[in-house]
Amino acid sequence: MRLFLLTLTAMTAGLIGCAETKNSNSELDEALTAKTITQTQKVALSDYRGKKPNIVLLFADDAGYDDFGFHGSKVMKTPHLDSIAKDGMIFRQAYVSDPTCGPSRAGLLTGRYQQKFGFEENNVPNFMSPNSKFLGADMGIPLSEKTMGDRLQALGYKTAVFGKWHVGGADRFHPTKRGFDEFFGFRGGRRSYFKRKVEGTIKEDLEYMERGFGNLAETDTYLTDALGEAAVDFIEDNKDNPFLIFLSFNAPHTPMDARPEDLEKFPELDGIRKINAAMTLAMDRASGQVLNKLEELGLAENTLVIFTNDNGGPTDQNAGNNYPFSGTKSNHLEGGIRVPFVAKWPAVIPAGTDFEYPVSTLDLVPTFVAAGGGKTDGLDNVDGVNLLPHIVGEETERPHQTLFWKKDARAAVRDGDWKLIRMPDRPAELYDLSKDTTEQVSLASEHPEKVKELYKKIYNWEKTLAQPMWQLDRKWEDYDITRMDTYRLPHEQD
Amino acid sequence: MRLFLLTLTAMTAGLIGCAETKNSNSELDEALTAKTITQTQKVALSDYRGKKPNIVLLFADDAGYDDFGFHGSKVMKTPHLDSIAKDGMIFRQAYVSDPTCGPSRAGLLTGRYQQKFGFEENNVPNFMSPNSKFLGADMGIPLSEKTMGDRLQALGYKTAVFGKWHVGGADRFHPTKRGFDEFFGFRGGRRSYFKRKVEGTIKEDLEYMERGFGNLAETDTYLTDALGEAAVDFIEDNKDNPFLIFLSFNAPHTPMDARPEDLEKFPELDGIRKINAAMTLAMDRASGQVLNKLEELGLAENTLVIFTNDNGGPTDQNAGNNYPFSGTKSNHLEGGIRVPFVAKWPAVIPAGTDFEYPVSTLDLVPTFVAAGGGKTDGLDNVDGVNLLPHIVGEETERPHQTLFWKKDARAAVRDGDWKLIRMPDRPAELYDLSKDTTEQVSLASEHPEKVKELYKKIYNWEKTLAQPMWQLDRKWEDYDITRMDTYRLPHEQD
Repeated sequence: MRLFLLTLTAMTAGLIGCAETKNSNSELDEALTAKTITQTQKVALSDYRGKKPNIVLLFADDAGYDDFGFHGSKVMKTPHLDSIAKDGMIFRQAYVSDPTCGPSRAGLLTGRYQQKFGFEENNVPNFMSPNSKFLGADMGIPLSEKTMGDRLQALGYKTAVFGKWHVGGADRFHPTKRGFDEFFGFRGGRRSYFKRKVEGTIKEDLEYMERGFGNLAETDTYLTDALGEAAVDFIEDNKDNPFLIFLSFNAPHTPMDARPEDLEKFPELDGIRKINAAMTLAMDRASGQVLNKLEELGLAENTLVIFTNDNGGPTDQNAGNNYPFSGTKSNHLEGGIRVPFVAKWPAVIPAGTDFEYPVSTLDLVPTFVAAGGGKTDGLDNVDGVNLLPHIVGEETERPHQTLFWKKDARAAVRDGDWKLIRMPDRPAELYDLSKDTTEQVSLASEHPEKVKELYKKIYNWEKTLAQPMWQLDRKWEDYDITRMDTYRLPHEQD
Repeated sequence: MRLFLLTLTAMTAGLIGCAETKNSNSELDEALTAKTITQTQKVALSDYRGKKPNIVLLFADDAGYDDFGFHGSKVMKTPHLDSIAKDGMIFRQAYVSDPTCGPSRAGLLTGRYQQKFGFEENNVPNFMSPNSKFLGADMGIPLSEKTMGDRLQALGYKTAVFGKWHVGGADRFHPTKRGFDEFFGFRGGRRSYFKRKVEGTIKEDLEYMERGFGNLAETDTYLTDALGEAAVDFIEDNKDNPFLIFLSFNAPHTPMDARPEDLEKFPELDGIRKINAAMTLAMDRASGQVLNKLEELGLAENTLVIFTNDNGGPTDQNAGNNYPFSGTKSNHLEGGIRVPFVAKWPAVIPAGTDFEYPVSTLDLVPTFVAAGGGKTDGLDNVDGVNLLPHIVGEETERPHQTLFWKKDARAAVRDGDWKLIRMPDRPAELYDLSKDTTEQVSLASEHPEKVKELYKKIYNWEKTLAQPMWQLDRKWEDYDITRMDTYRLPHEQD
C-alpha cells in the first residue's frame, strides 16, 4: 500500500508539474500526458488527512544556502540533513519572510507577515534607535498573535522549543506562555555555545540557558548537542502522543564556537569557514540524534520532519556560502531570503522528490495545522498557505503567486518569476528569476510597465501593514546596503 | 543715504543674478556687466550688521501658494501682505522642510531638518500608529533642541508666540519653556476660530486658548483678530527693546470658520473657497494691524517682517489654490513644499526686489540670529543658512545647492534645478524645475545617471537622520498619495 501510494503521488506530481521525481520515468511521463486525475488517485493523494503526525521543525540560524550536502556542498558534512532530502522532498524555491533572525522567526511562528503586527525590524538590544516604542526584552511578538505552539496545542499536541527564541525576552513573551509546553534554550538572539558563568538573572541577560520558565540551566555540553539531547528526551517522553518540536539551533550564527574534535574533521579548511563547517557538523549530528530516535521508537513513518533556516548566511560574519545566489543576510537579494528547505514524512511525502514552486516559512503554521487535523479554511491572521495539497498534487497552482518582503524603505516582491527590489538609494531593480537567479541583470529599463505593476503590488501590500514597533538605528540600514553591494556577485560553490 | 544704498544693493543684486529689480533698467544692466563688486559697495551692502532689528514672523497655516495678491490672485484680498512684497523682497523659490504642519514648524523653529531629531511625521492625535514611541501631547520638539526663541532670547530679544504652537502639547514643550517670553494661543494643531465653551483643562484638550502658561483664555474676538491684537499689544510693550514675534496664524487651516462681514466681501465666490477668502482677509487685516503699529511707533524702518506659510494648501479641505504648482499639502510636489515668502526690512532690504534662488524656512533661525547680532559660523545643530549676505548681494552663490524632504519611504531632493521624488508605489520621478515647474514630464528615463546621482544624495542625507519618534497610521500614507494623484495637474489661477 505504501509503495502504491507513493507511486500515485509521484505520478500526479509529475502530471501537474509542480513536483517531480528526480529520476524521470518515461513510462510514467507518457501515462501522465492525459493531465487528468482520477477519483482513485485523489483519494490516495488525500492520504495525509487524519494522520496527525508528529512534527519536528529543525531550524538553522544564519546558515549559508549552499552549506549542505543536499545542495551540493563538497566541504560541508551534513549526512543526516541530506537524508531528509533523500527520504523526502527538496523545496527548490523556499523563502523566509525576512532576511534577519527576529522578523523571520516572528513570521514563521505566526504564519503571518510579521510587519502586520509591527515586527518589521530585527530586535537586537543595543542596535536599536532610542525612538522605538519597545526596546530590549520588550521587543516581542504581541500577545494578540497566535503562535504555531498555540495552534498545535489546541489540536492536542505536546509542544516544545529547544534553542534560540528571539521573539521576546520579557516574561510575558516566554515560550511557555506562547503555546509551548516545554522550553530549554535562551530568550535572546545569540549566545556562546559553551557554558557561561552565571553572574546575573535571566531577566538581566537574555543569553542564559533556561529550562522551563525561569530556571537557569547552563550546561557543560556543547550547546548544539545539548539541544539535540533535549529534543531526544522530549520524544521519549511523548512517544505516545502527537508532538511538535521546534528545534531552534543557533548554529551557525556567531559567536563562532566549535568543538575541537569537530574542527578536526575539516583539515582542508581554515579560518571562519572551518569553524562554520564544524558548527554545521554539530547541527547535523544533533539532527541525526533526533532522526535516529524517531526511527528507534517507530515514529519516523508518521513524523513530518522539516529542516530549514531563518535567513541567508552573513558571509562577512560566519563565512556562510549562499551559492548560487548573490546577497546575504539582511538584504533582499535571493541570498538573503532564499533558504534550504527539506521535508520528510514517509507516510505521505514521496521520497526523492522536488517541489519547484516558491513556498514560504509562513506556510508552516497552516501546513502544521492541516497535518494536525485542524481546519485551515479562513484561518484567522495567517498569510501562509497549507502546503500539503500542493505537496501531494491535489492543488496544481502555485501556492503563492506573490510574496513580499519589507524593511523600512527597502522592499521586494516576487510575482510569478518576476522580482522587483525597491531600494532607498538607487532605482528599483527588476529580475526574471526564471533566467537570472543570481540577479545580475536588472531588466527595469526594458520592462517599465512591469516595474510599475510590481511597485503597486508592493504598495498595496504595504498598506495592510502596521508601523514598526521598533526600528534599528539608521546606521544599520547603511550596514545592510553596504553588505549587499559587497556580496553582489555569488560565491563559487565549495 | 537710504536711496543710495538701495540703488547699490539693487545694482549688485542684478549683477550677481540672484536678486533682481522687478523693473529692469537697461542702463544698470549695462553697467553691471563687469561682474565685479567694489569695496565701497561691499561696505554699503553689509549695512545689516549691528542693526539688531525687531523681527516679526507672520506665518500662515495651509495657505494656497497662489492665494495672495502678491502672487497674482485676483480673488483674494491681501493688501497688507502685498505691501510687504512691494516694500521688500519676494522670494520666488521658498521652501518649507515638510509639506505638513508639525514637522514644517519643527524645522522652522529649530533651523534643523526635523528628521534629525525624529520629528519626521505630522503629530496629529488620533491619527497616529499606536506603535509610536510618543503619542498625544508627548509628541514635541525634544528638549535637546534649541528653538528660534532660545537663540533670540540669548541675544537680548523679548520673544513671543501668538497662535498655533503644534510642536508639543505637554507642559515641558510649552512655548514659555522653549524660549518665548509670552504666549497667547493654543498648543495643538487646529481649533475653532470662535469662542469655545470650556469643559476641561488645557492638559486634556490642546485646543483651548491659553495666555502665558496654563491660563485659559477663550475670547469673544474672532481668533485671527485676537492674535493680531495680542501682537499689537506686545509691540506696544516692547517698543524700547528688540523683540521677536512669531505670529502663528492658524488661518486658513480648517475648520472653515469666517466672520459674516468678511464673507460678504466675496460675493463672487461660494462654498469653501469663499470661506477661505474671508479667513485670508482676516489674516491680512491682522497683519495690517501689526504693520500699522510698527509704523505708528516708528519701528518699521528697522523691523524685519517676514510672511510665509507652513506648507502647501490642502485643496480638498480648504479650497486653497497652489497655482502654478501641482500637488498639495502632504506631498512632495512643489505645491506641497513651495510657499509664499516675502520679507521687508526697509533699513536693509531694497523695495520691490525678487530673490530667485531656493531658500528654506530652515534659514530663518540663522538669518534671525545674524540679524540679532549673533554669530552664525558653526551654529550648532542648524541646517539652514544665514540669508542676509545673499539678500544684500555679498554672497553670490545659491544659499542651497541641495534641499531634502522625507516622510517614511517617500523623499525628495532638489539639487540645483533638478528634483527627484522617491515614492513607495512607483518609480522615482525626475524633473527639471527650470523648465517644468509643474512637474508634468518626468525625465527619469532620459537621465538615468542623474536619477542615480540624486538617489544617492537622498540616501546620504537620510543616513544622518534619526528614526521617527512617532508615525502616522499607515492609512494616512495612502491618503497622502491619493491626494497627490488627485491634484497632479495645477489649478487655474483665480
